[in-house]
Amino acid sequence: MQTLTVELADRSYPIYIGEGLLTQKELLCKHISGHQVLVITNKTIAPLYLDVLRDHLSDYHYSELVLPDGEQYKTLEVVATIYDKLMEDKHNRTTTLIALGGGVVGDMTGFAAASYQRGVNFIQIPTTLLSQVDSSVGGKTGVNHPLGKNMIGAFHQPQCVIADIDCLKSLPPRELSAGLAEVIKYGLISDVEFYHWLDRNMDELMEMNSGLLEEAVYRSCVNKASVVASDERESGIRAILNLGHTFGHAIETSQGYGNWLHGEAVSVGMVLAATLSERLGWIKASEVVAVQGILSRASLPTEPPPMTCKEFISLMVVDKKVLDGRLRLVLLKNIGEAIVTSDVNEVDVCSTLAALGVTE
Amino acid sequence: MQTLTVELADRSYPIYIGEGLLTQKELLCKHISGHQVLVITNKTIAPLYLDVLRDHLSDYHYSELVLPDGEQYKTLEVVATIYDKLMEDKHNRTTTLIALGGGVVGDMTGFAAASYQRGVNFIQIPTTLLSQVDSSVGGKTGVNHPLGKNMIGAFHQPQCVIADIDCLKSLPPRELSAGLAEVIKYGLISDVEFYHWLDRNMDELMEMNSGLLEEAVYRSCVNKASVVASDERESGIRAILNLGHTFGHAIETSQGYGNWLHGEAVSVGMVLAATLSERLGWIKASEVVAVQGILSRASLPTEPPPMTCKEFISLMVVDKKVLDGRLRLVLLKNIGEAIVTSDVNEVDVCSTLAALGVTE
Repeated sequence: MQTLTVELADRSYPIYIGEGLLTQKELLCKHISGHQVLVITNKTIAPLYLDVLRDHLSDYHYSELVLPDGEQYKTLEVVATIYDKLMEDKHNRTTTLIALGGGVVGDMTGFAAASYQRGVNFIQIPTTLLSQVDSSVGGKTGVNHPLGKNMIGAFHQPQCVIADIDCLKSLPPRELSAGLAEVIKYGLISDVEFYHWLDRNMDELMEMNSGLLEEAVYRSCVNKASVVASDERESGIRAILNLGHTFGHAIETSQGYGNWLHGEAVSVGMVLAATLSERLGWIKASEVVAVQGILSRASLPTEPPPMTCKEFISLMVVDKKVLDGRLRLVLLKNIGEAIVTSDVNEVDVCSTLAALGVTE
Repeated sequence: MQTLTVELADRSYPIYIGEGLLTQKELLCKHISGHQVLVITNKTIAPLYLDVLRDHLSDYHYSELVLPDGEQYKTLEVVATIYDKLMEDKHNRTTTLIALGGGVVGDMTGFAAASYQRGVNFIQIPTTLLSQVDSSVGGKTGVNHPLGKNMIGAFHQPQCVIADIDCLKSLPPRELSAGLAEVIKYGLISDVEFYHWLDRNMDELMEMNSGLLEEAVYRSCVNKASVVASDERESGIRAILNLGHTFGHAIETSQGYGNWLHGEAVSVGMVLAATLSERLGWIKASEVVAVQGILSRASLPTEPPPMTCKEFISLMVVDKKVLDGRLRLVLLKNIGEAIVTSDVNEVDVCSTLAALGVTE
């Protein structure tokens, strides 16, 4: 097991990464301060791991809630069912919410924890690669609005994160790939060495080599934790974590939540960001090809769905990364070095989209 | 105009208290940092003051939303209509929400501001006495759950509060009284001098003497701000602000939100707290009578509605002030000195309720 601390002063917390962690009762229980717990999971994950948790938590005032599975259920209405459960079972301010599942469960549980009685404790047990490397680090919680992704939410840090690599064995191949999109992102934005390590090991990662997966999760979390520690509220540098995301959110919104996985949309978004970076003269054409290559080897899409340029732009303008109407994008100065820029005009964006087959 | 600063480090903000403040465009505009504003008000307040604000804000990307009026509309569903408006009108992270109205509008606007895009700016323009002295100071925001009051919310501090005493002139007498309940509370919990001042001036306050009302609002805010500054997140001393509230919330929940005004329920709750304090030998019987007297002169109820003791206890146990099942109450060590205690047993609570005519 590897342990990493996300340094956020009095909100610092540990991330445990390793095999067989779900079977370790004490690892979980030492982070529960009160007598009440609510485990929140979904219909897919419940049959796999809920029994183990229920056994660990038999000494507590215990509740559980099984949500429907899928990004399309990441809504305020579903969070309201969490409040209902907490109220019905008389949970008070000392309760601990435990998120057992992927990013959707984690984001909604975190938002419920941020807002129930103005804030209670929560613990993340991410069961997908994407949630282990992304949504469980950094305290972003929230739900989607019909007109935009993650538009409603809060910053709320967990007590700890338990990332059990064994959980990845039950992951459908498409979700493994979606997680690898974010893993590759960390290499691209801030860790060129990690990028080359991934390039060398991608085939074995795709074959679910546990040791390599643990290392990939650990290095991803180290990269994310370092960025988050220096800018918890995303007033500056944290925005680089959104490489590919402004394009990606536009794809997700246009295609309907749940039809494209988040990581798949981000994969295409990163290809677009790399292409635009090359257009601005920052990286080489061969590097764009290499980025497309590593994403393809992770079985990720590298071409946008049938959308018009107009549709892209209008969806990108409502993205949270936009400040006072000005499009802000994360681009690559180099492989391993991302920057945030507002100096991109719509013409360049459209030309980039056109180069990847997007019509006006 | 009097100005008071709520001291909360980088979240400090000013409260302006005086007559004619709504007409001062600059007072408002200097606290708006971006180009977008959304004014949120209700059907009762809109015809009175919305035109003035709309004129002040003609240079901004301006939106307005008029909510239904009443505590029964302080729900997550109504907050969702605020998100809808923000999304439809393409408001981004730099937007400022302006709450124009009483506590319900302020609490919902504050919660929407806390959670829209994980936090945007907001300004409070409280138009009722209750909201000027209570909900606009301290950053508590939120909505009710069908099973409990203020159960969903966040701590989120405004950029400023503008308390225009002129707004109180349009207040129905019942709401003036409800506000005075909280004003009297500040005297009882932490300011015996203010309590005696109120006792001397209650008749003129009830006649809407502007100078005295301004002083009452100012001293109430000073008292609250001082408590909030020393315990923003209510981990300790801030709980004394809940004098009468645990009993009061039980009354409100039992009678249905909106049938009893918050201040009316708190008035009865303070009588119950004073009676229980006397039972414990802390204050004199004559002081309980004096508390009942000042509340009566403010035209406030001093006797509970027809509820059973069992109903009271079961509703009090789900209150946020309860820690791990143990009833915590705010009581009076002296007039002007409140304490929080868990050393009260249900028998004493029931005897106190019985003394005020509540059946088993």
